[in-house]
Amino acid sequence: MQKQFNQKQNPGRRIFSSRRRGSGRFVNSNIRKNTPKQKSKDEKLRIIPLGGCEEVGRNMTVFEYLPTGDIIILDMGMQFPEEDMLGVDYIIPNTDYLKGKEKNIRAVVFTHGHLDHTGAATLLMDKIGNPLIIGSRLTVHMLQARQEDYKKGSAKNLKIKLVDSYDKVIQLGAFKLRLFKVSHNIMDSAGVILETPTMTVIHPGDWMLENDPDREAVNYKALARLKKPTILMLESIGATHTKERVPEREMYKNIEKLVSEAPGRIIIGTFSSMIERVKVILEMAEKYGKKVALDGYSMKTNIEIAKKLGYIKFNLKILIDIKQIHNFPDNKVVVICTGAQGEENAVLARIANGEHRQIKFKKQDTVIFSSSVIPGNERTVQKLKDLIYRQSDNVIHSEIMDVHSSGHASVEDFKEVIRQISPTYFMPVYANHYMLKEAAKLAREVGYTNEKIFVPDNGSILECKKTGVKMLEEKAMTDPVFVDGLGVSDLQNVVLRDRQILSEDGMLVVIATVSRRTNKLIHNPDIISRGFVYLKENKILIEQVRKKIVKIMAAKDPKLPLQDEYLKNKIRNDLGQFVFSKTGKRPMILPVVIEV
Amino acid sequence: MQKQFNQKQNPGRRIFSSRRRGSGRFVNSNIRKNTPKQKSKDEKLRIIPLGGCEEVGRNMTVFEYLPTGDIIILDMGMQFPEEDMLGVDYIIPNTDYLKGKEKNIRAVVFTHGHLDHTGAATLLMDKIGNPLIIGSRLTVHMLQARQEDYKKGSAKNLKIKLVDSYDKVIQLGAFKLRLFKVSHNIMDSAGVILETPTMTVIHPGDWMLENDPDREAVNYKALARLKKPTILMLESIGATHTKERVPEREMYKNIEKLVSEAPGRIIIGTFSSMIERVKVILEMAEKYGKKVALDGYSMKTNIEIAKKLGYIKFNLKILIDIKQIHNFPDNKVVVICTGAQGEENAVLARIANGEHRQIKFKKQDTVIFSSSVIPGNERTVQKLKDLIYRQSDNVIHSEIMDVHSSGHASVEDFKEVIRQISPTYFMPVYANHYMLKEAAKLAREVGYTNEKIFVPDNGSILECKKTGVKMLEEKAMTDPVFVDGLGVSDLQNVVLRDRQILSEDGMLVVIATVSRRTNKLIHNPDIISRGFVYLKENKILIEQVRKKIVKIMAAKDPKLPLQDEYLKNKIRNDLGQFVFSKTGKRPMILPVVIEV
Repeated sequence: MQKQFNQKQNPGRRIFSSRRRGSGRFVNSNIRKNTPKQKSKDEKLRIIPLGGCEEVGRNMTVFEYLPTGDIIILDMGMQFPEEDMLGVDYIIPNTDYLKGKEKNIRAVVFTHGHLDHTGAATLLMDKIGNPLIIGSRLTVHMLQARQEDYKKGSAKNLKIKLVDSYDKVIQLGAFKLRLFKVSHNIMDSAGVILETPTMTVIHPGDWMLENDPDREAVNYKALARLKKPTILMLESIGATHTKERVPEREMYKNIEKLVSEAPGRIIIGTFSSMIERVKVILEMAEKYGKKVALDGYSMKTNIEIAKKLGYIKFNLKILIDIKQIHNFPDNKVVVICTGAQGEENAVLARIANGEHRQIKFKKQDTVIFSSSVIPGNERTVQKLKDLIYRQSDNVIHSEIMDVHSSGHASVEDFKEVIRQISPTYFMPVYANHYMLKEAAKLAREVGYTNEKIFVPDNGSILECKKTGVKMLEEKAMTDPVFVDGLGVSDLQNVVLRDRQILSEDGMLVVIATVSRRTNKLIHNPDIISRGFVYLKENKILIEQVRKKIVKIMAAKDPKLPLQDEYLKNKIRNDLGQFVFSKTGKRPMILPVVIEV
Repeated sequence: MQKQFNQKQNPGRRIFSSRRRGSGRFVNSNIRKNTPKQKSKDEKLRIIPLGGCEEVGRNMTVFEYLPTGDIIILDMGMQFPEEDMLGVDYIIPNTDYLKGKEKNIRAVVFTHGHLDHTGAATLLMDKIGNPLIIGSRLTVHMLQARQEDYKKGSAKNLKIKLVDSYDKVIQLGAFKLRLFKVSHNIMDSAGVILETPTMTVIHPGDWMLENDPDREAVNYKALARLKKPTILMLESIGATHTKERVPEREMYKNIEKLVSEAPGRIIIGTFSSMIERVKVILEMAEKYGKKVALDGYSMKTNIEIAKKLGYIKFNLKILIDIKQIHNFPDNKVVVICTGAQGEENAVLARIANGEHRQIKFKKQDTVIFSSSVIPGNERTVQKLKDLIYRQSDNVIHSEIMDVHSSGHASVEDFKEVIRQISPTYFMPVYANHYMLKEAAKLAREVGYTNEKIFVPDNGSILECKKTGVKMLEEKAMTDPVFVDGLGVSDLQNVVLRDRQILSEDGMLVVIATVSRRTNKLIHNPDIISRGFVYLKENKILIEQVRKKIVKIMAAKDPKLPLQDEYLKNKIRNDLGQFVFSKTGKRPMILPVVIEV
């Protein structure tokens, strides 16, 4: 099916390389040579990952050519917050490095439409002067839809260059850009070739190797013939996947069995950007004469785009509105929805919590979690599963059946691809540090020496000259930028630290109202506490705290100004110690002295 | 090795059943029949899980025989807090059901020494009147040590009955108790048989089936001959483990290879209660002429107990203090320590953070994570791995090599054991709800009908009469009891909810000082905020908030008392809306009106 789509939907599009067609289409003669020779000694390419090299998510890489200053950016992704980033909605890359260089940015290239590669664009494009956007068809349409969602009418302001042929070479200042076809679990995933006079960069973006005989396999042997030296920047999420990926056909066979045999409705939760998966399930439903309702705003939007572009073809009649599901027998209904990560407001959780207007789980429903669990979401997903198991007898998830297939390569694929491309240098990227290190090990197993391998951090600057490649001592600024509430946030570490303390032990505000004239307390100190202990059951403790303050205030040197930090610190320390001795907790203590 | 230990260390102890010895040792004639006949019509056994049936951890089950009222308790475990239980140290079972019944408690039986089965004992034994403790050798010694740790001198007050023979029948009121040998990853794990006139309960505690040819396998066929009806209560953590468990020998082979070939030191992180694993590693070290330093308080204590009891035998000379490791060549040193879960104050994290006095990771060190990741700890462990990968070139964990073996059964083992024991009824326990449901599915696959299977919640009451078994409508109280700070906590849900709000969006205290005489603000309202926005960058916002309060106070009906809830609610609501419109955040707003 995948193959058909490639050929029929994009007749003008040429597959870069495939097992069947042979390779070698991509030759250097295609690329014009127009870089001035005289400068070549000082010329250098700098590769700077601004995000995605110490985490999974917020992928963004800067390629800067000097002395011309030309800049190409690859991807602008978001990241889900980590445990200690309390109240943060998501994180985007820090673009401080680009300040003052906006006019040099020739383009932002996006490899594919997943949010960890595109999700920061709405917030960042404006900030860096709205440069040209380059990507394949589905990718740029998804970007436009997201932009329009973010701010109505703003999508038309995006400058977009759609690349629909892998033969096209785009000159962008000192860079020659070409895309190449990559397998991943969203259509139109593209890798990037950036040729410069000093280095040719090969970056497949997110990738996997097909292990299904009935899907067209991509191979990368042609990339081995690119102008040397080359550097392969390889997404490394799968560098610890020692077991072979669950083949897509295997997964679809399992889902098809469930769809065809279900005694009642089928409700499938997956990521909203899993467009290919939804496509295949739509086709299955059609085959078995079932109706499909999509639910979840982002899922509906994405499928609409894919349908409009012709990536999904199905009889429109099988698609029904979620409100119509009651008009059909249960065993004729398939619901595909968001929320398989346990997200509070997504469809699956709303059904499970009894908050969904149209659907309540029935015992006979078959509920399928067709997604991986994003690290950190394990408990949330587990709770959701517990809740759904109480309502339905047929809950299916990856633990008990292969109903998800990863979009990322596994260990053997790494070795295969490194061998195929056989780059001069290897740079694992787009994953946690330990995964990058494991990917480096794999490169060593294939024969690379440490001198040819560079494991970057966020902000690392790799400098590629004709004379050689080295990692600079200096680093670009990459402190995470938190999105918290209404927009890019001014959220500082101090605010997060405060949230951490508040979340652990709560807080205690003590208010001492003091007469300016007599320098004495006017009445008993007021005490407000939240998240510390249950006040109703701790009246004695609160009374003791009050007495403690009275004592501190009485002992105060009358010459000391009331707002003096010394006094507040004394209250904070003395009370802190007292409270800890009584409760073992360290609430945040906030002394306020009111003068009247 | 395991076999040797069983025979040599406990010469008086008799193995209940094993492949080699045959089975059938356990016959009903051993059990005296002394229950009065006349009452038998009204007699019933109630099985009430107080914890461990909706989570992994805080395992505790009450067996109550009526009308005599005799109670046996099985296990008293702790649970690690879930994501939304902010600041909670751990959770213990709720014992409200036992209030007023303390004198009826005949014994608390412990299946093995892991904390999810014993960790609540120090806090709960006192509360339920310090009844008799029953367990096998290592288990009761670990309990005593923990009690002594908790309160010096208190261990001697525990009433303990050590069971060192599986043939022994202990009469406890209406119950006849016997233990039986179970395989798990700590020595001396025991299952429990509780015979009553209406039902025989079989509860193996945590269990696995040996899949190593050189370790003695336990089989449970003899249990099939117990007096019917029987109910099998089966720990179900492995009910979704569709893949076969990594065999222990496989794991040890991998670790031995690492230990023997390591170019530098070996540093192994594992759970402190993994006594068997430590034992085997000690033996390996001895074999390869290396010295071992144990680090981590609980690990040292546990190994000391096991050594004193003779469960571990090794030349004392190989054990060195952590301070001595520098006296030996690196490739002669093995460190076994705690902290493989990323626990903040445990050894591994302290080394990684540079806070350990004796150890700094070196490039040549081999660092092994020999443990599973407790759900919810994934990100913490990942961060720790990232940190250690930066310091050492040889980090080994389960993702890339089998250096951990689970102590829990897998799917096929479930079917095997249910077939061997062939109980009348089946009740999956000691796991999350969805795992219990999956275990129930496995029982159905073996031929059990729904009428014979009972999936309990915490607090469910299963009533077993001669006439039949049913789940009652009513439930026992099982609200979690949080341990937070110094002891069993009065921590209420409201406190946790407050912590949740504080952790997400912080708080805003507004203090209006008002003259009682004029009913007017004396000066500008004071505003304190933490964890909300960065105040220094939001001065305008704070000023707006101040103005808002001034306006509300000015518009206040002078007849309304200052401390009226209406006024405070108005401040809370108006400010809340305003702040949300400006920031998209909902901090906790705490209005204080001070009258002077």
